[in-house]
Amino acid sequence: MGAPLTRQQQSQLLEWFGPDRFSTGSSACELHIHDISPHRVEPPSGVVWPQSTEEIGRLLAWAYQEEIAITPWGAGTSTEGNPLPVKGGLVVDMTRMNRVLAIRPEDLQVDVEPGVFRRELNRQLSGSGLFFPVDPGADATIGGMIANNASGVKTVKYGATKDYVMQMTIVLPDGEIITVGNRAHKSSSGYDLGKLFIGSEGTLGIVTEATLRLSGVPENQLAATVTFPDLGSASEAVAMIIGTGLEPAALELLTEGLIELMNKENGLDLEVTPSLFCEFHGISRTSLEEVAALARELCEDCGALSYQYGIDEHERRTLWQARHDAWETINRAHPGKNTLIVDAAVPISRYPEVVVFANQAVKDQGVHGYVFGHAGDGNIHVVMAGDPDDQEEWRRLETVNHLVVEKALELKGTCTGEHGVGIGKRKFMALEHGASITLMKKIKDLIDPKGLMNPGKIFS
Amino acid sequence: MGAPLTRQQQSQLLEWFGPDRFSTGSSACELHIHDISPHRVEPPSGVVWPQSTEEIGRLLAWAYQEEIAITPWGAGTSTEGNPLPVKGGLVVDMTRMNRVLAIRPEDLQVDVEPGVFRRELNRQLSGSGLFFPVDPGADATIGGMIANNASGVKTVKYGATKDYVMQMTIVLPDGEIITVGNRAHKSSSGYDLGKLFIGSEGTLGIVTEATLRLSGVPENQLAATVTFPDLGSASEAVAMIIGTGLEPAALELLTEGLIELMNKENGLDLEVTPSLFCEFHGISRTSLEEVAALARELCEDCGALSYQYGIDEHERRTLWQARHDAWETINRAHPGKNTLIVDAAVPISRYPEVVVFANQAVKDQGVHGYVFGHAGDGNIHVVMAGDPDDQEEWRRLETVNHLVVEKALELKGTCTGEHGVGIGKRKFMALEHGASITLMKKIKDLIDPKGLMNPGKIFS
Repeated sequence: MGAPLTRQQQSQLLEWFGPDRFSTGSSACELHIHDISPHRVEPPSGVVWPQSTEEIGRLLAWAYQEEIAITPWGAGTSTEGNPLPVKGGLVVDMTRMNRVLAIRPEDLQVDVEPGVFRRELNRQLSGSGLFFPVDPGADATIGGMIANNASGVKTVKYGATKDYVMQMTIVLPDGEIITVGNRAHKSSSGYDLGKLFIGSEGTLGIVTEATLRLSGVPENQLAATVTFPDLGSASEAVAMIIGTGLEPAALELLTEGLIELMNKENGLDLEVTPSLFCEFHGISRTSLEEVAALARELCEDCGALSYQYGIDEHERRTLWQARHDAWETINRAHPGKNTLIVDAAVPISRYPEVVVFANQAVKDQGVHGYVFGHAGDGNIHVVMAGDPDDQEEWRRLETVNHLVVEKALELKGTCTGEHGVGIGKRKFMALEHGASITLMKKIKDLIDPKGLMNPGKIFS
Repeated sequence: MGAPLTRQQQSQLLEWFGPDRFSTGSSACELHIHDISPHRVEPPSGVVWPQSTEEIGRLLAWAYQEEIAITPWGAGTSTEGNPLPVKGGLVVDMTRMNRVLAIRPEDLQVDVEPGVFRRELNRQLSGSGLFFPVDPGADATIGGMIANNASGVKTVKYGATKDYVMQMTIVLPDGEIITVGNRAHKSSSGYDLGKLFIGSEGTLGIVTEATLRLSGVPENQLAATVTFPDLGSASEAVAMIIGTGLEPAALELLTEGLIELMNKENGLDLEVTPSLFCEFHGISRTSLEEVAALARELCEDCGALSYQYGIDEHERRTLWQARHDAWETINRAHPGKNTLIVDAAVPISRYPEVVVFANQAVKDQGVHGYVFGHAGDGNIHVVMAGDPDDQEEWRRLETVNHLVVEKALELKGTCTGEHGVGIGKRKFMALEHGASITLMKKIKDLIDPKGLMNPGKIFS
């Protein structure tokens, strides 16, 4: 499977894709072995850039016969090595299938090819009054987001990618083309195959077209920053805000280390104490003022030190931009280092416990680590900077990752809230899923009996 | 498989369940062959009432060896024959596993056994400030709702059952016990097996415990009734209300026939014209007044004839109760008849088309049929009353059902928005799913190779 392509195989691919869309060159191949994780693999045997479902159907049917491993590729923004070709073969770069095929505002729907980037999709939607609200931070492709069931800052209100995919065209590992789902807003028609493919990280086939649900662009936005004396009171406020039905559009926790860094790197002057960044969307300023007042009351009941807010204000946007850019800021502050990002989630009442635990682990291991996360979803991140070539240091980063994930599982959570399994989380799958991992593997073997689709991911 | 239980098999079941929880008696068996669909089957060989996961694990492992068909049973409120034992064997009545195991308000979660009825669950949640918002109308069990991915009036805001199930304990057909999912609000950890089981109608195993997400009880509720000159303008208003982000908690369309019947049977005095019943939930009266004003403006822009609303008002509740009781009202108005309920869904812009089409089909076939539905989800229902023993009349009811479903599929919708496939919709599965039905069947055969779990459902 890891063997180079034969001359015959290369001729076939050249015939189908031409020299513009098939390459065995080292620069093309080396562009497809790095996502933003620290994982590194050998270059694949070649890269193809298909442009249609039919091309992918023909390619996969052929690769299935030839037993060539296939690894789909989107934006390369994943954090667990999810699209790296660990067993060589062909990388299928989807970025030339990047058309927005149809916008149907009257149905709140859009049809896309999977290679479209989410920011470009929203650019093309501007003016329709609608947007695709899932925001994982990075400018991922829609196909990559589907593969990973991506989510992010706004998921607490708007949901994850799985909540937006209505219908998909999928090429199965043997080249068969199927359509799953439909364009009605709900259905109880047979097994929900769509949800099986969403989050399967390209291990079951390649999505070649998708119909997405859209949301109305909120008329007004309110942003608030709230400081707390400690993590416990901040987390208590999170549970109160969610439980009271205020429906925040974002509810982010930042701990001291990250705030110090943002002050330094982004020229801010924030108080260095656990803080919540909140966002609310509403149909009017009046209703948002009410939400702001109620949120303030709840936060103050939980011991908030300060509560500042603004509606559609530039200043608040600057703060949010700084939060959005946290990963880039951490990278910039640690030149020449790689990052290892912890991603785990717990029930929201256990959030303070896992955050305190993570802070302590960072301290105990003496690593550069910044703890924050999507508190409204119980999703914690620790971004750590280190040098993978310094084995002793990197081992300490890995230890923090291990400890926090194990803690999250102990608290009935999950080893990944949004980054997927890829290479990095395979080792936690048995611990998290117990006997059900066997059923997952049986489904993998049923759909991909030769193990050719994105091999080496999810399963060890 | 349809053979009666041997004396040995009966002894074994008696040993395990005792005479209180195992019966081959005709009254027990005949209580388990009627849901509210017109489908009728022969009585099963016996009924058991298990009380724990372990009991079900042992039962299924044994039944797998003995090759006895197993059909799980909840409240018997389904409409497509979903829990009827078409191949005899054992009915597993889940209603003695009806405990609410733990309420965790701090996590907005509850753990339940599947036999708890949804109204009883909400009764036990009262006082917590939380509720389980999926409302299919009937007082179904949670297990039945999971099996069918039930939804209903409030799904336009709150989502379907699938959106509320976080973790499940499942007994597979061979008796193996697995846990799927976790208790974090989101996850990207491997294949989403939970979603595969939700909506699988008991054909893949039996859910024996579930952790459900809950919602905050809304502080204030607004109900509005809006009349329109025609279906087109009513449907246009639906799209506007959804697209503007007003987030209705319910958005129901009623057509003339049903309104006439409600006037007569419920002593109401509604104008006989296409009407929307809307509900909005909010944190304050002020914000709801704003929503009401904006909704009125949108409806009037679409040509509404009248717009009446009230916040937390008794009068509006009476109207809603009448809508809720529509099925019972239709039954009462047609004594001695059975009902056949059409359930299909389409993209919301196609809703007027399918509603007009259904009204015409009812007229053309000369049947007693009432057209209404969850317009905010594009979900249409036609409740028809007729006599299954009058083959000619019943054929006309079936014809309406066929025509409306085929129309919904032509409009890129689904053959069932919320009632599931059961027996009644099997014939549409190939038309709706094409090649992907083969993959569904392969998964069925993978998990239930002997075809013992709720046989004869979903697949023909």
